[in-house]
Amino acid sequence: MESKGLQPMDSEQLRENAHKMVDFIADYYKSIENFPVLSQVEPGYLRELLPDSAPNQPETLQNVLDDVQAKILPGVTHWQSPSYFAYYPSNSSVAGFLGEMLSAGINMVGFSWITSPAATELEMIVLDWLGKLLKLPEDFLSTGQGGGVIQGTASEAVLVVLLAARDRVLRKLGKNALEKLVVYASDQTHSALQKACQIGGIHPENCKLLKTGSSTNYALSPDLLGKAISDDISTGLVPFFLCATVGTTSSTAVDPLLSLGKIAKNNGIWFHVDAAYAGSACICPEYRCYIDGVEEADSFNMNAHKWFLTNFDCSALWVKDRNALIQSLSTNPEFLKNKASQANMVVDYKDWQIPLGRRFRSLKLWMVLRLYGLENLQCYIRNHINLAKYFEGLVAADSRFEVVTPRIFSLVCFRLLPPNNNEDHGNNLNHDLLDAVNSTGKIFISHTVLSGKYILRFAVGAPLTEERHVTAAWKVLQDEASALLGSL
Amino acid sequence: MESKGLQPMDSEQLRENAHKMVDFIADYYKSIENFPVLSQVEPGYLRELLPDSAPNQPETLQNVLDDVQAKILPGVTHWQSPSYFAYYPSNSSVAGFLGEMLSAGINMVGFSWITSPAATELEMIVLDWLGKLLKLPEDFLSTGQGGGVIQGTASEAVLVVLLAARDRVLRKLGKNALEKLVVYASDQTHSALQKACQIGGIHPENCKLLKTGSSTNYALSPDLLGKAISDDISTGLVPFFLCATVGTTSSTAVDPLLSLGKIAKNNGIWFHVDAAYAGSACICPEYRCYIDGVEEADSFNMNAHKWFLTNFDCSALWVKDRNALIQSLSTNPEFLKNKASQANMVVDYKDWQIPLGRRFRSLKLWMVLRLYGLENLQCYIRNHINLAKYFEGLVAADSRFEVVTPRIFSLVCFRLLPPNNNEDHGNNLNHDLLDAVNSTGKIFISHTVLSGKYILRFAVGAPLTEERHVTAAWKVLQDEASALLGSL
Repeated sequence: MESKGLQPMDSEQLRENAHKMVDFIADYYKSIENFPVLSQVEPGYLRELLPDSAPNQPETLQNVLDDVQAKILPGVTHWQSPSYFAYYPSNSSVAGFLGEMLSAGINMVGFSWITSPAATELEMIVLDWLGKLLKLPEDFLSTGQGGGVIQGTASEAVLVVLLAARDRVLRKLGKNALEKLVVYASDQTHSALQKACQIGGIHPENCKLLKTGSSTNYALSPDLLGKAISDDISTGLVPFFLCATVGTTSSTAVDPLLSLGKIAKNNGIWFHVDAAYAGSACICPEYRCYIDGVEEADSFNMNAHKWFLTNFDCSALWVKDRNALIQSLSTNPEFLKNKASQANMVVDYKDWQIPLGRRFRSLKLWMVLRLYGLENLQCYIRNHINLAKYFEGLVAADSRFEVVTPRIFSLVCFRLLPPNNNEDHGNNLNHDLLDAVNSTGKIFISHTVLSGKYILRFAVGAPLTEERHVTAAWKVLQDEASALLGSL
Repeated sequence: MESKGLQPMDSEQLRENAHKMVDFIADYYKSIENFPVLSQVEPGYLRELLPDSAPNQPETLQNVLDDVQAKILPGVTHWQSPSYFAYYPSNSSVAGFLGEMLSAGINMVGFSWITSPAATELEMIVLDWLGKLLKLPEDFLSTGQGGGVIQGTASEAVLVVLLAARDRVLRKLGKNALEKLVVYASDQTHSALQKACQIGGIHPENCKLLKTGSSTNYALSPDLLGKAISDDISTGLVPFFLCATVGTTSSTAVDPLLSLGKIAKNNGIWFHVDAAYAGSACICPEYRCYIDGVEEADSFNMNAHKWFLTNFDCSALWVKDRNALIQSLSTNPEFLKNKASQANMVVDYKDWQIPLGRRFRSLKLWMVLRLYGLENLQCYIRNHINLAKYFEGLVAADSRFEVVTPRIFSLVCFRLLPPNNNEDHGNNLNHDLLDAVNSTGKIFISHTVLSGKYILRFAVGAPLTEERHVTAAWKVLQDEASALLGSL
């Protein structure tokens, strides 16, 4: 048997090899600080290292693991490194990892209730649990006309609700009204919204990204929205979708949900709230205020895979009217018909999403909630926010730098001030500083542009990050800044 | 520490608990034949068994595993059971499972090359490997203008190429031409195509599902296609997309790629080939003929997660013109800009798919190819096809039954003949037989309707299935048929 290699499936071969893999992964976490955080390889590096074609004969797991160590890990950017501060976090955790393992072990495809009732029902229950932790209004829970569903990403979440809203209005106005439909959001909204519009055939000029600025701390102004809607109605356009963000990608700006939501409601507009990153913080009473007004929303999204210890992917979407999703996304081919679905006794999540097939993703969220419990999860969030506060203090204490926007959650937006207030030089300077610190391999941060200024983003949120990592990161930033300023 | 439960991430806690999970999963496979294949629970069963809200304090892994055993597994439909013959298979394997573990362990988000160069590069390389095993034309490989990408599902694969094709033609004709665009496929095409049309704003009446019948063994007739295209052009419509299937969901019908592809080419139509299920068989020289003509296609899709031992999800899509995808699906927000992307030196897979984030899915496909090797994979496919042949023989030898369509791969379409040739009774009879066999919990099969007849589908493809399972399944079918016929 050894010469034939592994059986396609064999419980004892799985046991033996998976134990080896556990040790490999545990050792990876143990040594994760030894790797450059941002991979330093050159484009095309891997093709030089691997053969041109798949082998005819089986290789051993040890061969493969040796290659992972020698060839793959150097090309990995280590999102789980404690010195990862780029973009937003994408949390792994012991519980999330165990949930992924179990889901991969059962390996069922839960498109309809009947294809694994437990997968559908656990998802409904666990999203009710999480909805309650976030104190979402009851009409988002599965006990009424609404409910939660796990999407892969926030991009898919905004796409499916945009389609539901589009089709709701087209059913009234006829499908040729598509060219008149208008979407609103701030210019700080994630690019996923524009992509969703493009996919759904919304005309690009009708995706209106309203200007924000430092006066509202980059939040969307209700006045501006009201005026845009009136103007568009007066020219015969049809406003139908508003996306507000709680915790924008650039700077964690928080759009004022309550005022925006009222405008949406008065105009019969679908109101979606994207709290992909910041939603996690709202399980703490002191941060719940940032989603006040969510009761006005038609849909609400947060990514448990960002800052909630649930391995990627797990994007939680709640809607008040599940039928709007189903009317837009359902299919009912003969080969999937079954008693439970035909009798309308069950939820078939295939009709709430783009793909047909779906993994058992609720397992990992369920395990995160049970193996940590609410209080530990709150501590976890508060710890990261405190570390961000600490970093903000470090920046503020160095007069060569400035904190650019008020810190709300665990992201600090800052920059190195251009010497002699020469703003022409400021953007290049910060671009060079970003490049310099990331090239050290010691930390990984990312950037954005706000009001024309190139800004550095320091997002705390990796599960292993401790105060010492923040201190060390600041030291790298100071050292590289000194070198840059010295060379001017 | 014990009282506080698990740390969010700790290498030794991960090691200890993941070893426990490995044993749990290995024991699951060891005992998988003890479960009813199709879950026998009633809708709503789980809500009775779980609390209404998440716990405040952490629970232990043992608590959770006990609940998985007692409450979750009874609600699972066991796709990995050796007696699972429904729909199409969704393979788990030792190698696929190990790949999932490693991907969950590294837990990076590979939207752009820079966010983990190894993830992008391994995906390009491994899809080149698989493309070569399938003897795809070179212009589908990443070394030219084309390349492969892993989508979640075949639904997403057909959606992204439909959007690429749509936007290519709309760039020429202007976006108001949307209402004139026409899609063609056979009426046996997977419902994912209609869903993609709905998402992309193609008018439903312009999604033309051409009739098939037993005379072509449910394959699309090139003559019918040619006529439909001429008719539509003459009324001012714009044909732009053709989807052919190799191995339809109902009956593994194979559309004639070469003739269809030539018609598509002559009319400037994007030609997509969906070989989601049957593509895997084409790694065997004796089955490669079924995708002859793929050289005429613009895109080709097969699901490694169906019948290729790669845990769900892993849908391999190849295109000849990657720029068509990128022009339709790219976004370039400031916060994702980086040197490698800006210099156009790398592939950023975010622009080849619907979501932004993506998992490191190439790892599992790489491990399947390396840990089994081509020859074992071919044996695996042939073994299933031989088991299906064996089942076909059993059906043919019982005069109460008939094989409905010629078996090509590992699916047998058959039915119980209605006594006295009373066709009015045939559909109910087979519906009742399906219900009866699935209610035993001993096997799980599914159904379809062909030319108005209710047909049973027996799809061999679970990794643990052996001849004895097929023999036993046939016994269940015969026994339940006898009981049904006896009660008439």
